[in-house]
Amino acid sequence: MEKFTRNQRISAITKILVESPNKIINLNMFTEMFNAAKSTVSEDLIAIKDILIKLSIGKIETISGAAGGVKYVCGISKEESIKFAEELCIILKDRERIIPGNFLYVTDLMFNPEIIHKAGTILASAFNKLDVDYVVTVETKGIPLAYEVARMLGVQLVVVRRENKVTEGPTVSINYVSGSTNRIQNMSLPKRAIKPGSNCIFIDDFMKAGGTAFGIIDLLKEFDSQLVGTGVLIDNIDIKHKLVNDYVSIIEFNGLDEKNNAVLHPSKKNKV
Amino acid sequence: MEKFTRNQRISAITKILVESPNKIINLNMFTEMFNAAKSTVSEDLIAIKDILIKLSIGKIETISGAAGGVKYVCGISKEESIKFAEELCIILKDRERIIPGNFLYVTDLMFNPEIIHKAGTILASAFNKLDVDYVVTVETKGIPLAYEVARMLGVQLVVVRRENKVTEGPTVSINYVSGSTNRIQNMSLPKRAIKPGSNCIFIDDFMKAGGTAFGIIDLLKEFDSQLVGTGVLIDNIDIKHKLVNDYVSIIEFNGLDEKNNAVLHPSKKNKV
Repeated sequence: MEKFTRNQRISAITKILVESPNKIINLNMFTEMFNAAKSTVSEDLIAIKDILIKLSIGKIETISGAAGGVKYVCGISKEESIKFAEELCIILKDRERIIPGNFLYVTDLMFNPEIIHKAGTILASAFNKLDVDYVVTVETKGIPLAYEVARMLGVQLVVVRRENKVTEGPTVSINYVSGSTNRIQNMSLPKRAIKPGSNCIFIDDFMKAGGTAFGIIDLLKEFDSQLVGTGVLIDNIDIKHKLVNDYVSIIEFNGLDEKNNAVLHPSKKNKV
Repeated sequence: MEKFTRNQRISAITKILVESPNKIINLNMFTEMFNAAKSTVSEDLIAIKDILIKLSIGKIETISGAAGGVKYVCGISKEESIKFAEELCIILKDRERIIPGNFLYVTDLMFNPEIIHKAGTILASAFNKLDVDYVVTVETKGIPLAYEVARMLGVQLVVVRRENKVTEGPTVSINYVSGSTNRIQNMSLPKRAIKPGSNCIFIDDFMKAGGTAFGIIDLLKEFDSQLVGTGVLIDNIDIKHKLVNDYVSIIEFNGLDEKNNAVLHPSKKNKV
């Protein structure tokens, strides 16, 4: 039978835990994998626990009982979180990003894995303590961010569509009013996408007036489910009247100043 | 100055490397972080290298020179890859998944982080050796999978839209013919999304006749860029005439049998 050193076990256990956030892994998996006693694996886990806490890069939780084991819970230090937001503000202030109509071009950032991985970790950290069943987003730009949050929370992602698709079976559709443009829009979701009685988190790229988040609450009612949290990358605080109040954000965008520069700063609604 | 044990360093270095696939990390980052000599960190890296190879769960590569350092390259064993494909076939064979029109409901799987993380690792492993600049997909269902492949390859994701968006600035649009329905469709992409002379990988959920992949080749020409690889989760081999030949897939779907059961098996085009 193959033998493993403590160093080797610690490296492999760290990788396995980090790659499956919020998933409970039974210690038997490790004892079998490494042909090691439970006490040996427990000591390995203590070393891993200690360093994650020391560096504020998440934690290892122990769950007792028959279905028990250990799980990795994502985390990031307050310093790292603010540093990330500040760096993102500098990237966003590039004048080339201002598009006719005073939109900010953020598509490349929303599809940049390095940025989205970190942003997802920050947002997920705000919801780690909640009992979440699904992470919900509306197509398209927020999908990678919502996916990262779902992955960190160890739950299923649900993507609300703007129109029905023939490949999704029976769907539930609702109309809602976009808070910023006042236009009536459509949202639809396959009937089988969400189980009744579920707790959902809504994740999106931008928060304007909050019309979409408000629509999500309505849509979830059709599934006998509820919204328990909302998180966005950028909060447009230039729009003062919001339809929702309770949400987490990473960056605040306060429109353009008299010199046509985007006004941006780290958000006061970052919960890390 | 804080001291760290070898076990602690190995756990933290593993986490940092695994969370930034294909990104070169300079050894100075680790020596400063742990207040340790370069030779000490090098020894830590040897332990990590060894265990990844021993378990076939990726590898650590050393890059020499001024911009050098180490990077984690994702990987999965052939056994694990086949086991994953077999398990996915069982999930997909559920009769509830057959939707009027003989479509297979796969939306929940494409938005399941555990499945997509593994599928992304398998597909990315096929392209690890290529010099890739972007991973391209077409909205919507393939986005999480394409995002995972982009993350594993350490490159930017690009999402082609079905229609123009006012928030994306000048765009390039093309029309293409869907190979399976023969309908003319539209694809558009912001002009600034891809730099000229780039190598791109196309990732999608389903391969039918390959019309979309064919359209992507045309679209990339408008960006003076080229397609160097294609990967899908499910290949519909019931459609015999394909517009593209060279691609990687994980599952093969051969339509419904006489009892109306989906015929599925692990793909022969899996390159792991």
